[in-house]
Parts: sequence; structure tokens; C-alpha cells
Amino acid sequence: MNIITVSREFGSGGRELGKRLADALGYAYYDKEILSVVSGNLKLDETYVSRKLDAATLHSIPLTYGRTIGRTRLSMETAQIMAEQHKVIREIARKGENFVIVGRNADVVLKDYHPANLFVYADMDAKIRRSMSRKENDISSEKEMAKLIAQIDKGRKKSRELLTNLAWGEKANYHLCINTSDVEIKKIVAPVAELVKTFIGGME
Amino acid sequence: MNIITVSREFGSGGRELGKRLADALGYAYYDKEILSVVSGNLKLDETYVSRKLDAATLHSIPLTYGRTIGRTRLSMETAQIMAEQHKVIREIARKGENFVIVGRNADVVLKDYHPANLFVYADMDAKIRRSMSRKENDISSEKEMAKLIAQIDKGRKKSRELLTNLAWGEKANYHLCINTSDVEIKKIVAPVAELVKTFIGGME
Repeated sequence: MNIITVSREFGSGGRELGKRLADALGYAYYDKEILSVVSGNLKLDETYVSRKLDAATLHSIPLTYGRTIGRTRLSMETAQIMAEQHKVIREIARKGENFVIVGRNADVVLKDYHPANLFVYADMDAKIRRSMSRKENDISSEKEMAKLIAQIDKGRKKSRELLTNLAWGEKANYHLCINTSDVEIKKIVAPVAELVKTFIGGME
Repeated sequence: MNIITVSREFGSGGRELGKRLADALGYAYYDKEILSVVSGNLKLDETYVSRKLDAATLHSIPLTYGRTIGRTRLSMETAQIMAEQHKVIREIARKGENFVIVGRNADVVLKDYHPANLFVYADMDAKIRRSMSRKENDISSEKEMAKLIAQIDKGRKKSRELLTNLAWGEKANYHLCINTSDVEIKKIVAPVAELVKTFIGGME
């Protein structure tokens, strides 16, 4: 079984790369699909679960008004949702199929399966450009977008630190780190797929 | 003109990857060849020049005996040798041929040519294994080798800091960072060559 995890900075095109890698390799692809399983298992509304997880990520940023006044703790319910998400991810791995999974600290959760771990990143300018071209965003100011990107990535870093000491985005924790500032994602898919296969082969 | 710079941790196999990439792509390859040009230009012995440059790298580490007692400054001669080396590297670029260059802070020296910049790294265990299998090393203890690796890499980091604020090994400063802990270098050459070509294309 080959597992590829894709961690990424917001706006780097990491999700697109993950999806295209899965298509190119004929692997299953998991990202938001996991949410519906988690919410089904917990008999909770999917949007509610999604917002809880987002809030958990964002709220693990220290709140600062001039000085740090503390960190929001995870509610018992949010902790339960996160635990369920990890369980669902491990259940996917137990099925034994090849797959690509984006985000969700999957590289840490699936550590024992020795996945190939990618990290996708880009310059802030490139991330702003990429994010603002997405239709789902209603942010029109570049400054505001830069702030959101920084906030989301801080949240990802922090949510990872709840799980592990292996720092988010620290290259030593990944097999391959790809800077997408100057490239079109679809153009790098084929060689990245080839390279990742070599990494998986090397780890078996 | 396509330029690929390869920066690497000691023992990561970066030089081997650089050489093999050049062969695979039909590019010229520059590494130690530069030394003989530098020493020729300065009418100095090549071994002497090589030792001066190594010493400059190693001595830019703060000397610590319990507490920091200071940094060795570069002698005027060493500074001259380094400047000559940068000049030689830029002259190579002016020839207009495609080439791969390993080390020597070439990514910084050649910044205006927009090279594709790779960083090659590995876990300490893998670097020890790789270094100790090289015939040119007469170090037989793993502990001693780990110390040497750490010392050389600290020197590379410091010598880079003499030139630029773009930190050595910080992924934002490279297009692609490759972890060679679990792979045979020769197996990754073909896909890395393909991927790097995409990066070069994306930058033009």
C-alpha cells in the first residue's frame, strides 16, 4: 500500500497538486470526504463539524490584545471530533488501498504506515495571487488576504503542535518540499508523481 | 540558458545528485573545477586555495570554550579568494551554457540569472552512513562523523550569512528541497531532472 500525504501552506496549490497526483497515479483521494464520514459517525451536521474543526485550528492561535491573554482551549466536543477524524483516517489506511490525503495532519496520524510526505509552499505574493483567483473567496483586498493566509497557516502549525513535536513545514519532516511560486501545478504533476513513487519504493 | 544550483547538507549525496543531473540533462557541471581557475587567476597553489576556503567556512563558526570568545575574522587574502571565486562563477554564467553548480553559495552569487535552486538534505543517521562509506574519509567513529557533519554544515550556514540574509537550508529560498534519507541518489535523478526543467520553464 502506498500512501502520499500532502501538507501545504494556504494558497500554495497543495490541494490541487494532491488531487492531480491521485488522478495521475490512479490512487484514491481523501480530503473533505473525511468530514462527511466523521459527521456521520458522530451523528452531527457536516457543516457544524467543519466549523468546529476550523475553529479549533484558528483558536489555537494565542489571543493577543497588546499582551497575550491566553489560548482558547479545545472544547470536549472539538477534541472528540478531532479524535474521530484521526480514527477515520486510520480506518482508510487499514483498507489497504493506495491513496493521497491532503492536510489533517495525516503524515503524523499515519506515521506507522510510512507514507511519502510532501510539503507544498510558495511566496506570499504567489499565495495571494492564487487565493484571490479562487471563486469561493470573497476577499478583495490583497492585504486582507495576506492576513488570512498568515492566520490559517499559523492555525495549521498550532493544530499540528497539539499532536506532535515534528514541526509543521520543517523540511526535515517531509520527503519532498515543493515551492510552487513560479509554476503551474498541472505542469509539475507528472514528474512529482514519478519522484514520489521513487520515495515510496525507497521506504519499503 | 538554464542554471541549476545544488546546495546540500554534508553527506546528503547532493554532489552526486548534481553531477548525475548534469549528465542526465547534458549540462556542464561545476564544482571543484572552479578552484583551479581561482588559483590560476590568483597565481596561488590550488591546495592552498582550497584549504583557505575550507578554513574560512570552518572558522566562521564562533569559537566556544565554555563561553563564546569571538569569531575568527576572514583574512584579507581569504576575502580575496572568495571574491575571485564569485567572479569566476559569474564568468561561467556569462558564457551562456546550461550548467549545474554545486555549493559555493552559487544560488546567491547567480541570483540575477534566476537559477533553479535545489537543496538536498537527509537525517543525520543517513548522512553518517553515506559519509562513512566514502573512501576519502578516514573517520571510523560514527560519533566523530556526526560532529564533523554538524561542524561543516554550521560552517556552510555561516559562510552563506556573510553574503546574504537568505538563510541556508530555509526552504523558502529554494525551488525544491529533497530528503535523501531513504533513497538511492541514482534512482531519483530522472524525475528530479524532469521536475527541475519544469521549474526552469516556469521562471522564464
